Amino acid sequence: MTSGGLGPTHDDRTIELLARAAGRELAVDPELEREIETVVRGLAERFRRPYSEFESGVRKQATLPEGGVSLGLAGTAPGILLQTDGALAIALPGPPGELQRIWRNALERPELEAVLARAKNPSNRILRFFGLPESAVAGVVAEAGGEAEGLEVTICAHDLEVQVDLVIPAGAEVQAQRLTDALRAEHPRALFAEDEQPVEALVLETARTRGWWIATAESCTGGLVSARLTNVPGSSEVFRGGVVAYDDEVKVEALGVPRAVIERHGTVSAETAEAMALGAGEQLRAEIAVSVTGVAGPGGGTPEKPVGLVYLHAVTPAGSHAMELHLPGNRDAVRRRAAVSALHLLRRLLTHNEHRHV
Amino acid sequence: MTSGGLGPTHDDRTIELLARAAGRELAVDPELEREIETVVRGLAERFRRPYSEFESGVRKQATLPEGGVSLGLAGTAPGILLQTDGALAIALPGPPGELQRIWRNALERPELEAVLARAKNPSNRILRFFGLPESAVAGVVAEAGGEAEGLEVTICAHDLEVQVDLVIPAGAEVQAQRLTDALRAEHPRALFAEDEQPVEALVLETARTRGWWIATAESCTGGLVSARLTNVPGSSEVFRGGVVAYDDEVKVEALGVPRAVIERHGTVSAETAEAMALGAGEQLRAEIAVSVTGVAGPGGGTPEKPVGLVYLHAVTPAGSHAMELHLPGNRDAVRRRAAVSALHLLRRLLTHNEHRHV
Repeated sequence: MTSGGLGPTHDDRTIELLARAAGRELAVDPELEREIETVVRGLAERFRRPYSEFESGVRKQATLPEGGVSLGLAGTAPGILLQTDGALAIALPGPPGELQRIWRNALERPELEAVLARAKNPSNRILRFFGLPESAVAGVVAEAGGEAEGLEVTICAHDLEVQVDLVIPAGAEVQAQRLTDALRAEHPRALFAEDEQPVEALVLETARTRGWWIATAESCTGGLVSARLTNVPGSSEVFRGGVVAYDDEVKVEALGVPRAVIERHGTVSAETAEAMALGAGEQLRAEIAVSVTGVAGPGGGTPEKPVGLVYLHAVTPAGSHAMELHLPGNRDAVRRRAAVSALHLLRRLLTHNEHRHV
Repeated sequence: MTSGGLGPTHDDRTIELLARAAGRELAVDPELEREIETVVRGLAERFRRPYSEFESGVRKQATLPEGGVSLGLAGTAPGILLQTDGALAIALPGPPGELQRIWRNALERPELEAVLARAKNPSNRILRFFGLPESAVAGVVAEAGGEAEGLEVTICAHDLEVQVDLVIPAGAEVQAQRLTDALRAEHPRALFAEDEQPVEALVLETARTRGWWIATAESCTGGLVSARLTNVPGSSEVFRGGVVAYDDEVKVEALGVPRAVIERHGTVSAETAEAMALGAGEQLRAEIAVSVTGVAGPGGGTPEKPVGLVYLHAVTPAGSHAMELHLPGNRDAVRRRAAVSALHLLRRLLTHNEHRHV
């Protein structure tokens, strides 16, 4: 049976496989069992269930290969460290937040310190592009010598962004610089970041610097743009709010889009997108506003307005910009790509950094 | 170098490893090269780049182990099928949409048909719970005999939902039924689905049946609730829209929350949540409304109102319900868990299915 704690963790099989690989027996760790019991008794009480229901599950989660050490609990399942003669094994929960937390505990263990002291860390570099095909980036990388000198290059495309990760071992610094220079020179307009900050953080940062509020008006993206903006800590100082104007009545009543604009040009049109952005700025009293209206599919497409057609409009005190997109993919992909495009439209308008070299 | 097509695909190393494992040489497939060239020439033209920049990348993506067969392109990278004496290997792109599309091509190949004809498909069963610790589910599973008779049980917790997947090989049907009966009997209130439909689809379906519109009013979730609702195809027939009332001014002006309520009870309070839900229903003219206000962190917490404190309120013509949550986790986790809780609050209020057995 695969079973983690509260919140998914590595499964029981990990522990069994670890014990088998290390040639160790499995045994219940009494101290760990008491620790998990404390957590689970609290939960049992909260959910008004007798503790006995959980007892066997608790014992299972407190079962370790002999010599294994708990690194702390993720929910009710422990991270585990096991030192054998030839190797050090660490089993961590899967969800990124839990993994990072338990990993920090692992870093404090002398066994791991000893391993890390023997290793040399390669350095890293990141370049991120928007609005380029992955092949265009790969072409420049190949022209500039690619993975010469032991450099590791990973190119990954996701929702219209292309990220280049360089892992630079000792001796590959010159090649890394050559590649970086080539990418900066060939695609200066598409290069938007040299770190992992998401585009929404760049937008918020620029708006904060200028003292401008941001508002959104979303139809087909249904709140994805505002959800991304508000995922950044501190966004409440810059993001005023948004209207998810899914039904046309909401576009008219909450955003003040003239009914005549919708009737003449349609819900999915550059004109409606413009009126939505202007309405969001006015109604929510924000200097900056961005709107999205489109056909996410799978239904609702017509020959004139097919699935994937999306109109964006952004307004700022420094100017406005409209964009028509024809996005490939299913409903989910069209929505995600429309949202990221809206954020990049804002970023471009706010930074004017047609030649941004970070 | 790791490089996929337009949209990420399996990386080049997959192909190299496949060739090595099968003991085959790598060679360019001329027909495949022409096919990829056609796609890339179109892209090059669209992005106004000379094709020569992409030529070496195209050749690389058209390189297959000898005997390998293209299953069609995902972006500019092919899915690949390789039949060896003892095994059949299929390499597919990673993104689910691409993977599914190319897998359908694979299913039409006689090599795969032959493998599938020899295999017996186990059947599957799913049970999904909300508001229970994973250990409570694991306890019932263990009590009822767990993985006896060759049954495979996977329990996975994610954002307060716990999903039990049963893989039932021939001979394990009785044990599967015993487990299912035990879970249904022990946790009837928490069991909300026996299929993979997300909770937002259940909410929309019930609202549609009753002819009611839905509206949302979100503060700390910033649009996540509306984004989940609108991710369901056809949601536009039921979901009117939402207000992301991040700043208090938007709560007052767009949702009509009395300023006195916020001043007396605070932005994060049961009273403000109630006023937000009532305001969303009125302003967006929806029979059903749900609101979320809380402290997502990392900043903004106080001893009285710590990070993770969230108030929900749902109103329908059949009644209303309020909920106070104390959610663990970082900003992202608090937001996601608050959003899923809001959807389940609506589901419970709409279905009244305290003892739903699907």
